[in-house]
Amino acid sequence: MVTMCSLTSTLVCTHSYPRHLRFLSVSLPIFHKFKTHPKLFTKSPNAPFLTVRNCSSITAKPSSEIKRNRAGSEPDEKLRRLRELFSKPGVNIDAYIIPSQDAHQSEFIAECYMRRAYISGFTGSAGTAVVTKDKAALWTDGRYFLQAEKQLSSSWILMRAGNLGVPTSSEWLNEVLAPGGRVGIDPFLFSSDAAEELKEAIAKKNHELVYLYDLNLVDETWGESRTKPPKKPVRVHDLKYAGLDVASKISSLTSDLVDAGSSAIVISMLDEVAWLLNLRGSDAPHSPVMYAYLIVEIDGAKLFIDNTKVTPEVMNHLKNAGVELRPYDSILSEIENLAAQGTHLWLDTSSVNAAIVNTYKSACDRYMGSLRNKTKGMKMHDSSNGQSGGPAGVYKPSPISIAKAVKNHAELEGMQNSHLRDAAALAQFWVWLEDEIHKDVKLTEVEVADKLLEFRSKQAGFIDTSFDTISASGANGAIIHYKPETESCTVVDAKKLFLLDSGAQYVDGTTDVTRTVHFGEPTARQKECFTRVLQGHIALDQAVFPEGTPGFVLDAFARSSLWKIGLDYRHGTGHGVGAALNVHEGPQSISFRYGNMTPLLKGMIVSNEPGYYEDHAFGIRIENLLFVKEVNTANRFGGVGYLGFEKLTFVPIQSKLVDISLLSVAEVDWLNEYHSQVWEKVSPLLDGSARQWLWNNTRPLVKQ
Amino acid sequence: MVTMCSLTSTLVCTHSYPRHLRFLSVSLPIFHKFKTHPKLFTKSPNAPFLTVRNCSSITAKPSSEIKRNRAGSEPDEKLRRLRELFSKPGVNIDAYIIPSQDAHQSEFIAECYMRRAYISGFTGSAGTAVVTKDKAALWTDGRYFLQAEKQLSSSWILMRAGNLGVPTSSEWLNEVLAPGGRVGIDPFLFSSDAAEELKEAIAKKNHELVYLYDLNLVDETWGESRTKPPKKPVRVHDLKYAGLDVASKISSLTSDLVDAGSSAIVISMLDEVAWLLNLRGSDAPHSPVMYAYLIVEIDGAKLFIDNTKVTPEVMNHLKNAGVELRPYDSILSEIENLAAQGTHLWLDTSSVNAAIVNTYKSACDRYMGSLRNKTKGMKMHDSSNGQSGGPAGVYKPSPISIAKAVKNHAELEGMQNSHLRDAAALAQFWVWLEDEIHKDVKLTEVEVADKLLEFRSKQAGFIDTSFDTISASGANGAIIHYKPETESCTVVDAKKLFLLDSGAQYVDGTTDVTRTVHFGEPTARQKECFTRVLQGHIALDQAVFPEGTPGFVLDAFARSSLWKIGLDYRHGTGHGVGAALNVHEGPQSISFRYGNMTPLLKGMIVSNEPGYYEDHAFGIRIENLLFVKEVNTANRFGGVGYLGFEKLTFVPIQSKLVDISLLSVAEVDWLNEYHSQVWEKVSPLLDGSARQWLWNNTRPLVKQ
Repeated sequence: MVTMCSLTSTLVCTHSYPRHLRFLSVSLPIFHKFKTHPKLFTKSPNAPFLTVRNCSSITAKPSSEIKRNRAGSEPDEKLRRLRELFSKPGVNIDAYIIPSQDAHQSEFIAECYMRRAYISGFTGSAGTAVVTKDKAALWTDGRYFLQAEKQLSSSWILMRAGNLGVPTSSEWLNEVLAPGGRVGIDPFLFSSDAAEELKEAIAKKNHELVYLYDLNLVDETWGESRTKPPKKPVRVHDLKYAGLDVASKISSLTSDLVDAGSSAIVISMLDEVAWLLNLRGSDAPHSPVMYAYLIVEIDGAKLFIDNTKVTPEVMNHLKNAGVELRPYDSILSEIENLAAQGTHLWLDTSSVNAAIVNTYKSACDRYMGSLRNKTKGMKMHDSSNGQSGGPAGVYKPSPISIAKAVKNHAELEGMQNSHLRDAAALAQFWVWLEDEIHKDVKLTEVEVADKLLEFRSKQAGFIDTSFDTISASGANGAIIHYKPETESCTVVDAKKLFLLDSGAQYVDGTTDVTRTVHFGEPTARQKECFTRVLQGHIALDQAVFPEGTPGFVLDAFARSSLWKIGLDYRHGTGHGVGAALNVHEGPQSISFRYGNMTPLLKGMIVSNEPGYYEDHAFGIRIENLLFVKEVNTANRFGGVGYLGFEKLTFVPIQSKLVDISLLSVAEVDWLNEYHSQVWEKVSPLLDGSARQWLWNNTRPLVKQ
Repeated sequence: MVTMCSLTSTLVCTHSYPRHLRFLSVSLPIFHKFKTHPKLFTKSPNAPFLTVRNCSSITAKPSSEIKRNRAGSEPDEKLRRLRELFSKPGVNIDAYIIPSQDAHQSEFIAECYMRRAYISGFTGSAGTAVVTKDKAALWTDGRYFLQAEKQLSSSWILMRAGNLGVPTSSEWLNEVLAPGGRVGIDPFLFSSDAAEELKEAIAKKNHELVYLYDLNLVDETWGESRTKPPKKPVRVHDLKYAGLDVASKISSLTSDLVDAGSSAIVISMLDEVAWLLNLRGSDAPHSPVMYAYLIVEIDGAKLFIDNTKVTPEVMNHLKNAGVELRPYDSILSEIENLAAQGTHLWLDTSSVNAAIVNTYKSACDRYMGSLRNKTKGMKMHDSSNGQSGGPAGVYKPSPISIAKAVKNHAELEGMQNSHLRDAAALAQFWVWLEDEIHKDVKLTEVEVADKLLEFRSKQAGFIDTSFDTISASGANGAIIHYKPETESCTVVDAKKLFLLDSGAQYVDGTTDVTRTVHFGEPTARQKECFTRVLQGHIALDQAVFPEGTPGFVLDAFARSSLWKIGLDYRHGTGHGVGAALNVHEGPQSISFRYGNMTPLLKGMIVSNEPGYYEDHAFGIRIENLLFVKEVNTANRFGGVGYLGFEKLTFVPIQSKLVDISLLSVAEVDWLNEYHSQVWEKVSPLLDGSARQWLWNNTRPLVKQ
């Protein structure tokens, strides 16, 4: 799956991000994000939403059903009810901002947190709604203009973010509100950094940013019809997949705390909580996580979670690791307690929400105030490391991010195994699809995606899709973030290119793979483009590089062959992937955005997914997942190790689309060697026609 | 010629430089530079120093002569005389810092400005001397440790910059001076940025940075024996080479001034002055420039120069362009005048010296103070664009930098023509050298370099070498910044690799070329390394990339083949080159330092010089100059143009060193096509044995 920067009109983004940014999609303040990076990932957080019963059976709720439910209510009435709340005592605001986020900056969120979708009726994955006493506006990016036009009622102004002359939401607020206005937000739904940036932007017109801690105005408006927060049971992620027990992970984390001069840390990213505690949940679509905060102190840890989700097995698992339970809603009072105890709290302000950070800072200020009163006339101790000076925050990126990104042996083994089962399901799927197409059966893009899900769900350990399948025929393939809908999608055309980008969550791993195929005769143009994309894929796959190299250094390898004929693609080349966790994770990436200085480290997983998209015609993308390994080079110049990639994905690349005359001998060798490995690794999992299909599709090419 | 980052122990420098840095070697503050980037360029600014008589005859002054002159004086006596000045009225300092720089941040400087070399006896190109009342210390980097050990007397402490535990010069001052000390500098010799950084660093111990405007204490110590400032006549750079007349250049500059809200600019970089005025000088070795400042106002320009250098022809040329003359030493009083007139002065603080910037700022403050007194009780106008608020500086990078880097048609034509003559001289040289070696004549590295100079100086329009020739046999080739000295250099060994990096200044262009050859039988190891360096060279040469791509994106292309076997090189891959100007110029570069976001633009010149260096064994580098051209690609994805390179250098690459089994068919084709062009373009300029040598060395290779 691709990551992108769709609104920048030139290919080269020259923005320089702070080096410590953990993960661009979640850490960039939303307002800034709308300006230049509306949404870096494509997978929609909403429907279709698959829930887990157990590891081998699933129920799917089609997206159309969810939409129809929403379409039933009247937007004007919603806005009227929302605005009524503006003048409530303790609220008293002139505007309210409703972002897409949940309290944890998750990419995929539970339905009950889709407040922006509820209030506006617009269900796209990226957008921000702003409601004033007499206006309502919704910002989204180019991917969603058409959808938003359809879904928004006439009460809403559609703000086409990125278009010339379209203000950002804060610029708009500065324009439409009388100076000195009060702009309300739910501080749980903004990272601290995003809230600070917003505060500064609207201060230009003397507007005040008002944190409404106790009441989310949309939830209040939503009322009884609001879906209940998810209550699915949490499960233990087996040590044989996790590779490292919780006590060891916590012990390593507390060393980091001590080194940083802090005595506790708040972990708010759901995948970080799940990874650290070797737990998995089912609260959000596509991501096997549960809603929770975790506070780790030097001498213990507290998990803030709805305890109805905690089974006796999980309870026991946590107890063994010295983790206590607390109610999810008690997070702020615990933060207050920590400040009162003089705790130096480590907070990653790019991900931890403004409610938590602000509560801590205010409590520290109160504590320091009372300390000043007590010690009047004495010189204050100014050290931020000593306890004598009162509590002081340590504002640094979360140390879990890198620790989680560097996979251990067991995690890599789980990824490898799950990828082979996934490849078997794909072989079964492809032979089925080719047969149907050749029998001239008319199948829609959604039917094809559903059938793929069926094959995958039969594989051992299957849990969920890892994102909404992109099943795109012909011109739809050129829409990089295409999501077929039952009511509107097209029939898969035997005479056009078909792009399929899909992935799954298994108990032992997460997959993400894209193949582009043609069921008939591709044109010379399609073959040339496909071959150049393949050359980019091979160049990145084969790269060897010294330790310390950031991913962006390798990005040009994947584009070079396309560049030679004036082609390119407007998305990054690689993103991190979690081990039985989020399909998109940081901090590493391989991208033409040059600000991410995170080096690629041994054990990290990245996708390798160059592409080419011809508007109104076709889309091509070839994606494998890779992990970073040490390469046993003959030399080690500079005294450093040299790194390269090992493939996780073993799915045939359609030879029919390769123009062999463009390939070098080494490139042909790569393709043949890859197909030989595909056969060797995946054929034992197959029989019958799927095995025959795999054989047919892994035969070597011969360069004349 | 290479640019490097020699003191960083890892290959990947993750420092992020301000985007506007015009040119790393000249714009990084010297103190910071010593910490991480001691000296980015290798060409020593001192001897051998070739002066021009006319365009076809030259006189060379060997480096040893200059050294012997220096060695005659006694360093202790110099230090004593220098320290005596510390207590002079109006001086009163506790320490004095003597940098390598002249007042214009030049890479190559006139001998009279080599104050650090004079006072310390250390003649290396990079170093800073700091003298306190009882101590004297000299900082230099790893390239010069041995040389400095030999040249410094026992009165000096050698500070091996970059070694563990070695303080920076400001850290050392903070350590050895009693708090509240006065540290003197000549403010002309520090860029404003460097002085500010120094000021801040020593403020930690309450030391004050004292600007001694009127007196350079080393010059005072030097006295009568100091070489006089250069007085060589300035010449007009013919319009047929410059391509654009001075009036047009000034007119375009004044538009930039208006756009930036400024009304005048100080240009202090000598190559910028020379470029803008279509003038060339002979004041510094290797750079055809003259010592001068230029101030361009909306309605005229003033050149600050010793008028004895200005011939009637030049005077006329300047008059036609509306440029008046002023004495070089009157620059500060003119700055005062401009401030008094309310001029909004554009100053590039990374290159303009602290004397000028500080004089302007102080004058502005005085002006504002008197304005405040006059308008007491009135609200001041705060606009920095309006004239009513008094003078205000516009602190931005010089606009000349990019304008100069993007060559016009005439400049490129001059570069192409001069490169062919240079190639002819090199062919004559190589056949001579091979003959001598095969006749078993013992030639030292310096003798070889001198003979090359002889061949070059016979070419039409020859003026000077463009840097000190690196003539390095065997293990000396592994010293990236090797500079052979008559008294210590070795004989060129017929059984070892020989690396030759050299260049020349011609009336119409500047060259810089490196070839590595073997006179006997290279080892398999040498061939493999050479071939991989060649593959990197070819990959960069062949790159096509979209408009807007910064050079560093292409750097990995040049390393990829070496990386595959765990090899690399510790210098950048490409630097800019002036057209009949400095051999190193910014703002573009192709480097593993990822901070320079300057895009490569059509018409820019860059070197392509990957290498590999095996300590105590051999060095390999293959360098051509290239210019950026538009490529007529079949597509223009993204609506942008696609760029690539065209070669300027046409000198055979030794086939004997190529392991053809490692090359792809496309790479063999590249080499054969290049050699065919070399023959076609250079053979008409040759006859006899040189022509035969060229024929022999441009025969196609055949891959079996």
